[in-house]
Amino acid sequence: MAFESKKLINNPNDVVTEFIEGLVETYPGLQYLDGFPEVKVVLRADVVGPKYDKVAVISGGGSGHEPAHAGFVGDGMLTAAICGDIFASPPVASILAGIRAVTGPMGCLLIVKNYTGDRLNFGLAAEEAKSEGYKVEMVIVGDDCALPPPRGIAGRRGLAGTILVHKIAGAAAASGLSLSDVAAEARHACGIVGTMGVALSVCTLPGQPKSDRLGPGKMELGLGIHGEPGAIVADIQPVDLVVSHVLNRILSPETDYVPIKRGSRVVLMINGLGATPVMELMIAAGKAVPILQLEHGLAVVRVYTGSFMTSLDMAGFSISIMKAEQAILQRLDAATKAPHWPVGVDGDHPPAKIPVPVPPSLSTKSDEVLSRPQQLNQQGRALEVAIEAATMAIINLKDNLNDWDGKVGDGDCGSTMSRGATAIQEDLKKYYPLNDAAETINEIGSSIRRVMGGTSGIIYDIFCKAAYARLKPNNQSDITPLQWADAFEAAIGAVMLYGGAAAGYRTMLDALIPASTVLRERLTIGDDPLDAFLISSDAAIAGAESTKQMEAQAGRSTYVSADILTSVPDPGAMAAASWYHAAAVALKDKFNAGS
Amino acid sequence: MAFESKKLINNPNDVVTEFIEGLVETYPGLQYLDGFPEVKVVLRADVVGPKYDKVAVISGGGSGHEPAHAGFVGDGMLTAAICGDIFASPPVASILAGIRAVTGPMGCLLIVKNYTGDRLNFGLAAEEAKSEGYKVEMVIVGDDCALPPPRGIAGRRGLAGTILVHKIAGAAAASGLSLSDVAAEARHACGIVGTMGVALSVCTLPGQPKSDRLGPGKMELGLGIHGEPGAIVADIQPVDLVVSHVLNRILSPETDYVPIKRGSRVVLMINGLGATPVMELMIAAGKAVPILQLEHGLAVVRVYTGSFMTSLDMAGFSISIMKAEQAILQRLDAATKAPHWPVGVDGDHPPAKIPVPVPPSLSTKSDEVLSRPQQLNQQGRALEVAIEAATMAIINLKDNLNDWDGKVGDGDCGSTMSRGATAIQEDLKKYYPLNDAAETINEIGSSIRRVMGGTSGIIYDIFCKAAYARLKPNNQSDITPLQWADAFEAAIGAVMLYGGAAAGYRTMLDALIPASTVLRERLTIGDDPLDAFLISSDAAIAGAESTKQMEAQAGRSTYVSADILTSVPDPGAMAAASWYHAAAVALKDKFNAGS
Repeated sequence: MAFESKKLINNPNDVVTEFIEGLVETYPGLQYLDGFPEVKVVLRADVVGPKYDKVAVISGGGSGHEPAHAGFVGDGMLTAAICGDIFASPPVASILAGIRAVTGPMGCLLIVKNYTGDRLNFGLAAEEAKSEGYKVEMVIVGDDCALPPPRGIAGRRGLAGTILVHKIAGAAAASGLSLSDVAAEARHACGIVGTMGVALSVCTLPGQPKSDRLGPGKMELGLGIHGEPGAIVADIQPVDLVVSHVLNRILSPETDYVPIKRGSRVVLMINGLGATPVMELMIAAGKAVPILQLEHGLAVVRVYTGSFMTSLDMAGFSISIMKAEQAILQRLDAATKAPHWPVGVDGDHPPAKIPVPVPPSLSTKSDEVLSRPQQLNQQGRALEVAIEAATMAIINLKDNLNDWDGKVGDGDCGSTMSRGATAIQEDLKKYYPLNDAAETINEIGSSIRRVMGGTSGIIYDIFCKAAYARLKPNNQSDITPLQWADAFEAAIGAVMLYGGAAAGYRTMLDALIPASTVLRERLTIGDDPLDAFLISSDAAIAGAESTKQMEAQAGRSTYVSADILTSVPDPGAMAAASWYHAAAVALKDKFNAGS
Repeated sequence: MAFESKKLINNPNDVVTEFIEGLVETYPGLQYLDGFPEVKVVLRADVVGPKYDKVAVISGGGSGHEPAHAGFVGDGMLTAAICGDIFASPPVASILAGIRAVTGPMGCLLIVKNYTGDRLNFGLAAEEAKSEGYKVEMVIVGDDCALPPPRGIAGRRGLAGTILVHKIAGAAAASGLSLSDVAAEARHACGIVGTMGVALSVCTLPGQPKSDRLGPGKMELGLGIHGEPGAIVADIQPVDLVVSHVLNRILSPETDYVPIKRGSRVVLMINGLGATPVMELMIAAGKAVPILQLEHGLAVVRVYTGSFMTSLDMAGFSISIMKAEQAILQRLDAATKAPHWPVGVDGDHPPAKIPVPVPPSLSTKSDEVLSRPQQLNQQGRALEVAIEAATMAIINLKDNLNDWDGKVGDGDCGSTMSRGATAIQEDLKKYYPLNDAAETINEIGSSIRRVMGGTSGIIYDIFCKAAYARLKPNNQSDITPLQWADAFEAAIGAVMLYGGAAAGYRTMLDALIPASTVLRERLTIGDDPLDAFLISSDAAIAGAESTKQMEAQAGRSTYVSADILTSVPDPGAMAAASWYHAAAVALKDKFNAGS
């Protein structure tokens, strides 16, 4: 099962130079030295070596750890990054070119992860640069806590803690300190940070077959960042336990990797290894903080969560803990233009959560205060008549609706709509405040959505809520026909906006839009309101029938062939026309004589 | 082959709430509403709804797109993010809670990706909020260019272009504009952005089996961000071709998705889908820019490269192109505290590359100007004697060194060292400037590294370069014995620093450190320098012999059992003692009589 790795690249030999080209296109503050393929150096575009009046901070090593190291080049962090080939130390000539490009009279600090190749190549470049007259110091980072207890630097690899050392040294240099002072701060930082990782997959080198070293259900603890096997292979566990185990290792009093004791303040870094989603990194961060606080007695004052020092496409993360002395914190918090240093991390934490706000006017939303009035006014009586007729029409049309929907949808339109209509009839009797038209419309929406699932329920609720929002500011007891027309248009507008359909899409809108247009026209020319309503309801019926000629452009009918569609009207449009028409007819019957 | 997905999580049902907890631990500028699990709202910690004097900008939708949307909450971008369950629209109550929490008298804008569930739930919440007295507008983003040509908004999904709309609306709101003006800018932005994606793998939902829909060697083009299949499945191709194809689709004049014509200025977003390493994203960015410029005649004025709108752990990326009108650019460049908006992207691009700097003093490094002096002074004669004796000793010891190394290493120590010694002998005759001791030592290092590969070559070169750097500032023709001792110590120090070993690690240092110590002692008490050198060379031999009693702590011998080690001295230490001792004896023999 060793497939060629799947990567979005060109020639595997060009990945590092092409990465640098893309990086520099993305960040105008960065440049690179024109020495591909041997010299692969990314540097600050605003630094000219001989004139640079601060200590230059230079790091680098093998590539495959992106965004490290080049993504951390910027004022306040690295001055240059020397990029080797994938997992291979850069050659001396490339390092020396980087030193020459950014080092001024204040000298340069090389920050090197503790791998033999990096130490020797950077070391030789440092000595050559010194012989050319440059002031050079080197600091070696070995923050690995996975291997047996340390004997000096030997055997401790440089891992994600290196990024924190970059930041501290970069901020120290930016503040104008001398080379020896910057180096001293960096060395101190190296001594107070520990890191350990966990991986779910092995990284795959560009152009190489995918490793199947880690089988299903397995994870590795204490891995390196170059595909080295981890110290332990274990069954995968909940991340709570994984985080707890890793923290116990880093902070173990027996091994004494880091001088962090109960009561210390610490910074935490959760570092993704390349293919780990932000969601999982944040989950780990959210678990690590309380474990550090409650089980280890530490105050976590900064949390850096992201993918900083990766291992190509490895799935997993490392955890780094650094002692957060005040001077360290000041360096970590200092501003930097390095594009991949995380932002928004400093400052005091407010409470993590705040109460869910209560609605501004609870009283109007509570069923308890709603009740059917003892006595209905004329508007209340009209509403009752219209609602009863409209709901009855839907209930009577149930089988037809199901039949049409069976041909162009999932066949339950009639049943669903009928369930809504029945609920409205029941709630109407119980508590609709019929003398308040706006609140009654609002309650119709709630009744519908309580019993009608899916899209149709929420669309009718939106329809009612939009009408309610428009009606509510009016005088409750005397809503004019034009105000009703306004509310109808607002309701249709909301359905169009939120439902994403328009006229001609073969939906309920093809009944309601013509009705609304005609209603407005008839009222404007001075028709009797009940006549205007009735005439507009004929337009609704005609509109619904016309859906037979329409292609579906929204909803489930988009998947049905045109042949079938031409023999069937849209059931949603027919339902809408039906209740609208029934209401108009009932009002005309009931109130025409009396007007 | 459908394995349970491997993820570093706890209960799959808790991933969203645990993500939010970790996010808020990481960023002190964020809070969440205390309404888990139904209400999952992340909001700015510095905004109190009723008092907020700007337009609130709210977005959200299903989770699984991290860092979207919660990672973009911050001054200048989103005011709140409403998080649904994985790939599921948030419920109305949660959206409404978010609106209430951050909306003040200026109102709020809801930015919603074009999915039915989101449109309806956000829509209903908007209408309910309006009925509570809030000013609310909604903008729907449909930037998808993968599906057939658009009919209005229908069928165009909201993808990564949404992030650009967030930024533009957020900056407009921060500048104090009214709700209608902020909404107008957001709507305009929606109309000038197009997006299309490519994936190498299908995302896996927490707790679900891994899909094998995409086999080896296959990629999908035009995918959605919820695991929907892409429009096309194709054989995987070099990323150059993939980028070119995607850009042709987005910018196709036939479909006319975006109003971008030749000569336009554009911004480019390369958006990782969750499991794509930064390296691959940057490679795509580096390829997209010249294609846009040269093939499409567009000026690329900003490049945003990163993982912004992901699809859980999907491997791949999407490309978004937005027309970069001046007003748009101003909004994109405006400062924001949203932690996941990319930094360092604005500003004019300097030249991408600059020349590799030349060494400050080329002349001293060039072989051409080096030559063996016509006449040697006393120091030159001494150096010649010492070098000849030292190299001859190594050549004579070759078989012994190979024999010892065969037991504790890879058996080539003698051959390698002898090759170096021979090169020194040859170069000595050709061009070593023997009257200049510093330069001669430097050339010895170069001779060694030219023919000795691996660690030993670079370590001896470091040894020589460090001595050179110390000797060079001295008077060339008259280096005192104490200056030689200083240089010897500097050379040993460099080997310790860069090689990572110390006394007792069973390396060459166990010969050289005792020699250096004794040399310093004898010179300090006033011994004749030749005697001091000779006596110190006895210490070197004794030190090398003592390595038999040492455990290996550096280099390849660390893998050899202690039983074997006790019968064999470290070959590197024996070699060092041998050349040092031979040089001391030769100098004593040659020059003692004449002193």
